[in-house]
Amino acid sequence: MKYFIRYGEIGVKSRKVRRKFEKKLMKNIMTGLECKFSNDNGRIILSTEKEDKTVREVLDRIFGIVSYSRIYETVTDNEKIAEVIKTVLPELIKEEKFNPEYQTFAVKCRRVGEHDFSSQEMAAYVGSVVIELTDAKVNLSNPDFTVYVEVRDEKTFLYFEKIRGLGGLPVGSQGRVVCLISGGIDSPVAAFQMLKRGCSITLLHCDNYPYGEATVEKVLKNAENLRRYSLGEEVKVYSIKYGKYLEHVMKEAPPRMTCVLCKSGMYQSAEILAINEKANAIVDGSSIGQVASQTLNNIEASRYHCRMPIFSPLISLDKLEIESIARKIGTYEVSIIPDGGCKAVPKYPETHADLELTKNVIEEINQRKILEEVTKSIQRIDV
Amino acid sequence: MKYFIRYGEIGVKSRKVRRKFEKKLMKNIMTGLECKFSNDNGRIILSTEKEDKTVREVLDRIFGIVSYSRIYETVTDNEKIAEVIKTVLPELIKEEKFNPEYQTFAVKCRRVGEHDFSSQEMAAYVGSVVIELTDAKVNLSNPDFTVYVEVRDEKTFLYFEKIRGLGGLPVGSQGRVVCLISGGIDSPVAAFQMLKRGCSITLLHCDNYPYGEATVEKVLKNAENLRRYSLGEEVKVYSIKYGKYLEHVMKEAPPRMTCVLCKSGMYQSAEILAINEKANAIVDGSSIGQVASQTLNNIEASRYHCRMPIFSPLISLDKLEIESIARKIGTYEVSIIPDGGCKAVPKYPETHADLELTKNVIEEINQRKILEEVTKSIQRIDV
Repeated sequence: MKYFIRYGEIGVKSRKVRRKFEKKLMKNIMTGLECKFSNDNGRIILSTEKEDKTVREVLDRIFGIVSYSRIYETVTDNEKIAEVIKTVLPELIKEEKFNPEYQTFAVKCRRVGEHDFSSQEMAAYVGSVVIELTDAKVNLSNPDFTVYVEVRDEKTFLYFEKIRGLGGLPVGSQGRVVCLISGGIDSPVAAFQMLKRGCSITLLHCDNYPYGEATVEKVLKNAENLRRYSLGEEVKVYSIKYGKYLEHVMKEAPPRMTCVLCKSGMYQSAEILAINEKANAIVDGSSIGQVASQTLNNIEASRYHCRMPIFSPLISLDKLEIESIARKIGTYEVSIIPDGGCKAVPKYPETHADLELTKNVIEEINQRKILEEVTKSIQRIDV
Repeated sequence: MKYFIRYGEIGVKSRKVRRKFEKKLMKNIMTGLECKFSNDNGRIILSTEKEDKTVREVLDRIFGIVSYSRIYETVTDNEKIAEVIKTVLPELIKEEKFNPEYQTFAVKCRRVGEHDFSSQEMAAYVGSVVIELTDAKVNLSNPDFTVYVEVRDEKTFLYFEKIRGLGGLPVGSQGRVVCLISGGIDSPVAAFQMLKRGCSITLLHCDNYPYGEATVEKVLKNAENLRRYSLGEEVKVYSIKYGKYLEHVMKEAPPRMTCVLCKSGMYQSAEILAINEKANAIVDGSSIGQVASQTLNNIEASRYHCRMPIFSPLISLDKLEIESIARKIGTYEVSIIPDGGCKAVPKYPETHADLELTKNVIEEINQRKILEEVTKSIQRIDV
């Protein structure tokens, strides 16, 4: 079986960058699917012995693919082209991808090379074959179904579907980020969004035990979900015994500051891991105003002591939009499993942290020292 | 005319926060539309003398609205309810919102209070009125058209459409951010995304003259486009004479570093403005890997000296997704007007800036001092 693989943005980059990206894209696909590649003018042709269903299941999880099509290759010869249509079309009708009784069709023909017919003539011919076979009505401006004919010298490719890919950039083409991941809905989606733009991801889970429980299993399950979209790039999961830091904070700092200091410590722990992992940014699931702690004041105060960039790809998304992505990628069902929540949250958490005051408290509780201690507990939990 | 205004997330917050948000939402609507409000169990009812078209044009630009419906109020009486349907339905059919020849319908009834009929009975009655009038077919599971009947004691509200709003949070409910805005496609979209989550925005344009030209007009036009979505909150536009900073950079620093140092200076200029404007974050249009300068290394190096949070709501979006938002909000057409681009860009810009090296260069060129000088030129350009 053969497929056209179309990629978007990486096409507009310099020749050198394009080659590198194409290579990474192909490598990522090959991690999930036994296949071979050839290149045809900025389009990748994938060949495989695997079933169509298997192929789609993999291609639907590969960032960098804008669209793909199962193609039928034949020689540039009217008889042969008609033969392909006569074989394939009944199958597609059976699969309910085209219902000639109710639906209209069009033929789109592109041609490269010297031939004794024009693209229009080829389209008209293919159209006549379809009509003969199905009696379907033509609609050139807004067809329900399209037969694509690409004539390239002696070869002709036919395809009948353009399946939309995930878009984005090939995972592993853009360097590494450390994503904070909790048992909640947002953080796995944030990590997914970074995969989308080609980043390799390392996950850090802050294990709040004894103030939080049952989140490790959820995190490991969602790491598995994220791995499905990270073919070709390993997704490591680290955990830090964060309860010890929280204990210190709860003992030393004003209760209302617990959440801001918790987040502040998370960013800095992630930064320490990021340096070790040669990552260049931290990622979290913040969305402004979603919960009491996600005010601009709190975000500012909790990020001040982390010098690495913090990306919050969900910063402008509504909860419903985040949940919709979570459902698509399979993390939602895991995230909503009850885990008891965090028991360190005070009765009245600060919602408008003062930056100067926070800086003072951070100094008073000797945050850096306790973090140095606690971050020693960072270790892989997925091996 | 009356409308139900439905809001989403702000409904789940505490009573106090909800009240504040509702008030802001109503204030924002009133800035664009002469109207009055009453509150009906977590739903706002808007009353106005204005035309339906005018009302929709305003409500479609108000963040915080999940959906809205034009409602027809009458008394809870079969005759009166039938009268409303007999008046309104023919109008809707004329407007092609319902085609009873081809389309199916359903009635959904909700009821509050004591009545001598059930919700089902009322739905059946209203259904019979519609059938008598149009001969349309009923389809309860997947109707093309729905008649909503809400019976509340002696009052009954009828509506026939749920129009989707922009979602998000009321602008002005979440504090202020300073958005860097250029003549390009991305930055106005980034600012729009922050409005969506309820932030008030202040725009800062870095005027690169003599290395860039003709961008000021574009920025002012796009500020106008953004204002359409910021009813109730002023959008100030500042400009900084940034060419002087670039001149210094080009004279003192290695040519390949120009773009990283340019971005670094922009963030710090925005930070200085943000402090004056009592804003708590900087916003830009970064999207990983979109152009040569948006690598993780460059982002890290250019952000290091800015201590305020930098939000990049487009960080995980593809160019096509960004363009699609730009088209919807009207900024695309302005952004694509040719402006000659930036003439300070070197032949070989750095694509993987080294953080330590960048820190050294920043010190050597005395960046802070020149920025202190240049930021004195920051001034409003929209008054």
